[in-house]
Amino acid sequence: MVDKLNHPHVGVMEAYFDMIVIIGAGLVGAVLAMHLAQAGFEVKLYEQRGDPREIEPQLDRSINITLCERGFRSLDLIGVGDLIRKLCIPIYGRVIHTVEGEAYQPYGNRNEAIYSIGRYDLNCILLDCAARHEKIDLCFNHKCLDIDMHTATLKIQNEITGQIHDIQASQIFGADGAYSTVRQKMQRLKRFNYSQTYLNGGYKELILPATEWGDWPLQNNAIHMWPQDNFMLLAFPNLDGTFTCTLHLPFEGQISHASITTYEDYYYLFANYFPDILSMIAPHLTRYVENPIETLITIKCFPWTFKDKIALIGDACHAIYPFYGQGSNAGFEDCQILLECLKADHGDWGAALPKYETRCKVNMDIIADLSAEHFEVLQKSIGDPTFRLRKKLERKLQLLHPDYASLYHNVSFTCMPYTEALRLEQKNGVLIEQLLAVEGIEDKLDSPEIDSYILSLLFDCVAERKPF
Amino acid sequence: MVDKLNHPHVGVMEAYFDMIVIIGAGLVGAVLAMHLAQAGFEVKLYEQRGDPREIEPQLDRSINITLCERGFRSLDLIGVGDLIRKLCIPIYGRVIHTVEGEAYQPYGNRNEAIYSIGRYDLNCILLDCAARHEKIDLCFNHKCLDIDMHTATLKIQNEITGQIHDIQASQIFGADGAYSTVRQKMQRLKRFNYSQTYLNGGYKELILPATEWGDWPLQNNAIHMWPQDNFMLLAFPNLDGTFTCTLHLPFEGQISHASITTYEDYYYLFANYFPDILSMIAPHLTRYVENPIETLITIKCFPWTFKDKIALIGDACHAIYPFYGQGSNAGFEDCQILLECLKADHGDWGAALPKYETRCKVNMDIIADLSAEHFEVLQKSIGDPTFRLRKKLERKLQLLHPDYASLYHNVSFTCMPYTEALRLEQKNGVLIEQLLAVEGIEDKLDSPEIDSYILSLLFDCVAERKPF
Repeated sequence: MVDKLNHPHVGVMEAYFDMIVIIGAGLVGAVLAMHLAQAGFEVKLYEQRGDPREIEPQLDRSINITLCERGFRSLDLIGVGDLIRKLCIPIYGRVIHTVEGEAYQPYGNRNEAIYSIGRYDLNCILLDCAARHEKIDLCFNHKCLDIDMHTATLKIQNEITGQIHDIQASQIFGADGAYSTVRQKMQRLKRFNYSQTYLNGGYKELILPATEWGDWPLQNNAIHMWPQDNFMLLAFPNLDGTFTCTLHLPFEGQISHASITTYEDYYYLFANYFPDILSMIAPHLTRYVENPIETLITIKCFPWTFKDKIALIGDACHAIYPFYGQGSNAGFEDCQILLECLKADHGDWGAALPKYETRCKVNMDIIADLSAEHFEVLQKSIGDPTFRLRKKLERKLQLLHPDYASLYHNVSFTCMPYTEALRLEQKNGVLIEQLLAVEGIEDKLDSPEIDSYILSLLFDCVAERKPF
Repeated sequence: MVDKLNHPHVGVMEAYFDMIVIIGAGLVGAVLAMHLAQAGFEVKLYEQRGDPREIEPQLDRSINITLCERGFRSLDLIGVGDLIRKLCIPIYGRVIHTVEGEAYQPYGNRNEAIYSIGRYDLNCILLDCAARHEKIDLCFNHKCLDIDMHTATLKIQNEITGQIHDIQASQIFGADGAYSTVRQKMQRLKRFNYSQTYLNGGYKELILPATEWGDWPLQNNAIHMWPQDNFMLLAFPNLDGTFTCTLHLPFEGQISHASITTYEDYYYLFANYFPDILSMIAPHLTRYVENPIETLITIKCFPWTFKDKIALIGDACHAIYPFYGQGSNAGFEDCQILLECLKADHGDWGAALPKYETRCKVNMDIIADLSAEHFEVLQKSIGDPTFRLRKKLERKLQLLHPDYASLYHNVSFTCMPYTEALRLEQKNGVLIEQLLAVEGIEDKLDSPEIDSYILSLLFDCVAERKPF
């Protein structure tokens, strides 16, 4: 039902009593729109920027997205999973580059993969899919100026015509990312807890082109990493044969964004620490000089919802560091959980929204902390012999018992809540410690003696009904 | 030097090249103005609200301020300490009310006191003092609309005339409290870390009048406390014979602001849990029904300063819960430390501001956490026998050795940094644990045997050059 009224200040007041407004047509906004439209709601999606499908993509400007099991479950529910799978590169493991050479670490034991795709490409395909829904109305170049939380009324400005409309929706979703306008509005409410924490370092990106034969310049189907204790280089394969090379440095210090600024600085940095990629990347290092330093932020807040009217979703309420590759997956999972809650409550938004926020919040706090820890792991531990031994032991346990799984496995290749994945990891940690305590374990890793010791440990777990 | 220029948009642009603007004429704003004026700076103090000295005070609306050593040190430096001491009530200890009766706990061993004063009275006297400085210009009803951080230019609106001025200052200080406009401006900078955390409970206040003879209705020179595990009542004496009675309840739950709302609810709450004050307070309980629920917030952020131009001070950068009585004291100490840093750097703001923020930040993080912990102590532990024994042991240690001091003592009766007070407490904790481990310690607390044991422990500390 649309009710157009004359309004003294803004010319037109549009009141929709059964229409949901989403602010932000990024990844999560588009996916949420499709989930809601599929459930029968009329959806208006307002995006401040122009339609990315009509604009040249900004190169060198975003870490690649990695999609995994929990992200795809949500995408499959709205029928776009397979389409997107085709546009991703499967990544089966990481290649660690150190001065001693390369070492490959598979992500899973059974050929499991995570799926890499550029943020821009993923956003365009999701918008294409959303635009095909007759219940979804995409409005680009529309800025949300203000929100009346109690009535779910928005003041929206068409940035092309300058015209301002008041729009009353049945519900408003803030899917407008880490710098969310909707959240800023909620932040002024009493009892709104909020924190934003910047990583004490930033990154710069450049695109390493495909070879002259159109091939990838490094092994594809893997993420390449050059850990250096307090800085690192990452390289993500793209479908077109290129790699996105992301250089993470602290802001200040001996080797930092403050000290490394000229072509020569970058050249000597690569010559000293990343020599195996130097000749390949040298012609492109000016891009590092020119490109901006990107920052990384963790955002935690609570509550995520206001009455039966307003809710935050995705990065707007839980921006996390990208190091566990879970940001988009968690945002897509939010959409699915929201709809599950709404269905369980038979469409009663007042009942469903608090369940949505409590179910997601506790899990997002955990993945936020895991993502921050994983940054340390990637930079510091990943090339370390004990860390590698630990990974080998995890794989061994997993081979000997099909139910045993690592934290990384449970986070990336299952849809179990992050709380559950962490709980299992805390229990599993004991097994790994018991194995690490075996004298000379590294040398007898493949001995029958160790196999039977592992089986006895696993059997004890079964006997005590502990999870693996 | 004042340079009035015509400005196309706002009519007048005032550029002051040697004048400091403070936003917020609350307690810290007024004290900072006096510190800066005394150092020779011209100061303009803009306050959005009207002059409190011309407005009726809002009754029942703020926890009493308790001033202590570190607050007075800053006030003495600007020559207003003694004036304010005369307007305070000295508080020598707390009276704990439980079903078993009353118990008095002195704050110090040597008659030390903290000093209680109403926020409104303190603000008025500080503004009176500031107004007498020829270098301080107080401007009430002036709202800060915007700040250009790079040029220290403010857009200020006179809320009476509606006129907007652009004002360029040499430095801008945000002394505008927990909901600081200046901080909101800084919050949009990249790499600004920020958190706001609300206490999961709120309070209501009422004023318990003086007796008909003008006397205090409860023992004055003490704070009265009725701890009840997850809620509590506090009563602070005022100079006019009244007491401010602050009722802290959780927001939700069996006994909470959600469940206690009518006169009858409050009556039965007091009858059940605070029976000794029931007859006195019963005639006034409607004020609890009418008065709003006040919330309590902890704010942490960093950085506090921007280049040589902008700085936050007081609650604007470190709002803390009031339970340790340190909020205003810490804010006044900020002013003193700022001036110390500036003098050490011979007036070089670019050098002094980073030193000011790093010196204060680490201490404020600690007192913020201590204040949150102290809420739990007040509600849960203060009536507890082990806690009381611990307090007795602390007093005993202090009596036997003049250098030993409790955390409360070091925070409230010295000016040592909070970091140092906490470090000493962590070491002292070991002594208390050793004493608590003595069998039957409670009964032989005053025996010569225990005295000599304590002295031997203290002697060991001296021998090992451990601090007490």
